Amino acid sequence: MKDLFADRMSKIPRSFVREILKVTENPDIISFAGGLPNPISFPHKDIAEAAAVVLNDSSNEALQYSSTEGYKPLRNYIADRYCGAGLDVEPDQILMINGSQQGLDLIGKIFLNRGDVMLIERPTYLAAIQSFGFYEPNFVSIPLLNDGVDLQTLKNKLKTLNPKLFYSIPNFQNPTGITYSRKKREKIGEIFNQSGTIFVEDNPYGEIRFIGNDLPCVKTYLNNSILLGSFSKIVSPGIRLGWIVADDEIMKHLITAKQASDLHSNILTQMIVHRYLKGYDVETHLKLIRKMYRTQRDCMVAMIKKYFPQDVKYTKPEGGMFLWVTLPVGMSSMELFEAAIDENVAFVPGEAFYSENPEKNTLRLNFSNSDEKRIQEGIKRLGHAIKNLKKK
Amino acid sequence: MKDLFADRMSKIPRSFVREILKVTENPDIISFAGGLPNPISFPHKDIAEAAAVVLNDSSNEALQYSSTEGYKPLRNYIADRYCGAGLDVEPDQILMINGSQQGLDLIGKIFLNRGDVMLIERPTYLAAIQSFGFYEPNFVSIPLLNDGVDLQTLKNKLKTLNPKLFYSIPNFQNPTGITYSRKKREKIGEIFNQSGTIFVEDNPYGEIRFIGNDLPCVKTYLNNSILLGSFSKIVSPGIRLGWIVADDEIMKHLITAKQASDLHSNILTQMIVHRYLKGYDVETHLKLIRKMYRTQRDCMVAMIKKYFPQDVKYTKPEGGMFLWVTLPVGMSSMELFEAAIDENVAFVPGEAFYSENPEKNTLRLNFSNSDEKRIQEGIKRLGHAIKNLKKK
Repeated sequence: MKDLFADRMSKIPRSFVREILKVTENPDIISFAGGLPNPISFPHKDIAEAAAVVLNDSSNEALQYSSTEGYKPLRNYIADRYCGAGLDVEPDQILMINGSQQGLDLIGKIFLNRGDVMLIERPTYLAAIQSFGFYEPNFVSIPLLNDGVDLQTLKNKLKTLNPKLFYSIPNFQNPTGITYSRKKREKIGEIFNQSGTIFVEDNPYGEIRFIGNDLPCVKTYLNNSILLGSFSKIVSPGIRLGWIVADDEIMKHLITAKQASDLHSNILTQMIVHRYLKGYDVETHLKLIRKMYRTQRDCMVAMIKKYFPQDVKYTKPEGGMFLWVTLPVGMSSMELFEAAIDENVAFVPGEAFYSENPEKNTLRLNFSNSDEKRIQEGIKRLGHAIKNLKKK
Repeated sequence: MKDLFADRMSKIPRSFVREILKVTENPDIISFAGGLPNPISFPHKDIAEAAAVVLNDSSNEALQYSSTEGYKPLRNYIADRYCGAGLDVEPDQILMINGSQQGLDLIGKIFLNRGDVMLIERPTYLAAIQSFGFYEPNFVSIPLLNDGVDLQTLKNKLKTLNPKLFYSIPNFQNPTGITYSRKKREKIGEIFNQSGTIFVEDNPYGEIRFIGNDLPCVKTYLNNSILLGSFSKIVSPGIRLGWIVADDEIMKHLITAKQASDLHSNILTQMIVHRYLKGYDVETHLKLIRKMYRTQRDCMVAMIKKYFPQDVKYTKPEGGMFLWVTLPVGMSSMELFEAAIDENVAFVPGEAFYSENPEKNTLRLNFSNSDEKRIQEGIKRLGHAIKNLKKK
């Protein structure tokens, strides 16, 4: 039976995060492993009301086949919101998709031949490695510094390797929580506008900045780029709704690929979300999410300071859902994982976020899905596990 | 910019059906071109009630990230329904997807290397040609006879070409309306169980048989197969919800591919559909759809008999949404399309449904989305256009 499957299947890294998440289903375990929003942040009641209105007033449209591009009023809303933030986007440059995750698949599909060079951040979103991996590119990873990607290495690789794409999460990156500085965004514009490489900007967390001021999308500085957005972190991830922004030539191919993938995204959901966004106070809702995550992030940072050994390093993100921990060189986060499970606390070992040569002493902590009490107790347990492992 | 895109993009047939559907947006045109269910068939009120209950009682679960496999109670329901129909299916053999269309993409992704031989029916569902086409197989098409695929050619191709997959729509096929006989299903079991080729059974229309008795799924006779199902024709297509049935080894790969594509299907929608199926009288609803489509199909057949020239041939489907017309040899359905638009009536020229060497004198008519009055008037106009074209 092995020969029956496509060659590409042998190259997909096994998702050990799935295995980890199974371990953490045990309710005794305090899990910082997942990437879930806090369900308190879902606008339950408003979504229920919006759904009732859509199904009462427009059920023929909401239940029938619809256009591949997506619900036009929703695309108008998204374009208006970008324009309000100073980014010139037309509704026809927007394609609705099933969460920004589907965008990765569609982008891989239309751009990547087997063996094409594709740049990624080091480390990067593990599901991006899997998703693009199906198209068998040659991944080349560029180190992330505290203010974004390492420009010197980036320039060098752009020049020598002529890559098709660079995949980046400039705001509160998953897994590191790192954000590109304004200066770095500008420089990236200069560099990419002289190259033939497309900058793919994934921005699922941009709306949940809780410290400092919003920075312009990198797209602002680029002649040619792809920008991904998502309702997963600001409305609901379960409804699987996101979008791609791209210019005409790329958009034409994306639409063809989307149509072949699943014809169009759920129109009932698109109409419900549109109704919610137009009819309810989304800004107040966003403020609530930001405040909650800020509190949880502050708590996690304070607890790390209190309970982790001094030589453990960690990022202090200004938004998003994750922070990144670097253990002293020589320690293994996989070994720590085993020890942590014995203490009933979980995280994702950093290895999952590298396409090659993983830094084995790194790990990702999620702070969005645990309240302060669980964060206090969980980080205490994790600090204990680290200290014990160091003694060995 | 052309070099930027993947090679596979140059092999995707342009979807002229999209162009056709645009033409038919003119409300003066009676369109038999689309493949839409009649919106009267949507259980609007019941879905609205089910949505209210789900969002009231279980919104945390309905709005949060969920499992790639899909909502377990819904998979239980689907498995039970198969078992009730005599087909032994376990819930773990079911993966929820975005309409059965996504199944084609996932199947292509896990099985097809560039150049692999893949058998298809001749003619076949045009979006299957597009969807599998992204994985660049070598399509080999097997003629459809009135009782299903031509077994002699099939046996020959299975033996000489060792294809990976055979894609089939055994019930009320799109575009022809043809259904495989029971005998042919049995024979297919014998043939495929001696081959290494996977039979992919797409069954979106199986529940809308309005003449005769249900036949067993071809899967009943197969050791190894993939079966696709959909809620598009029995609940709503706009919600994009279908499923794949496959054995463990294949399922494992499908789950990996689904996860990389979009993590999971919309859980809110899965819970609403489950609530609807459990709480409402689905069988009565299905009877209503079947009765309506039967009336519309009978009307179309009667009008064809009345208005089309005697030498025009057509299928008389026992279910589904389409019938297939064959004009006298030498006539072109593309030319007829132009003439028909002048008469304000539309259809899909048959060319779209062939991977190569199209039969230019064929066309597809949809009867599910027009009431009797429009069918009477539309077929009269089309008969007029055919007669005029014959005179030229």
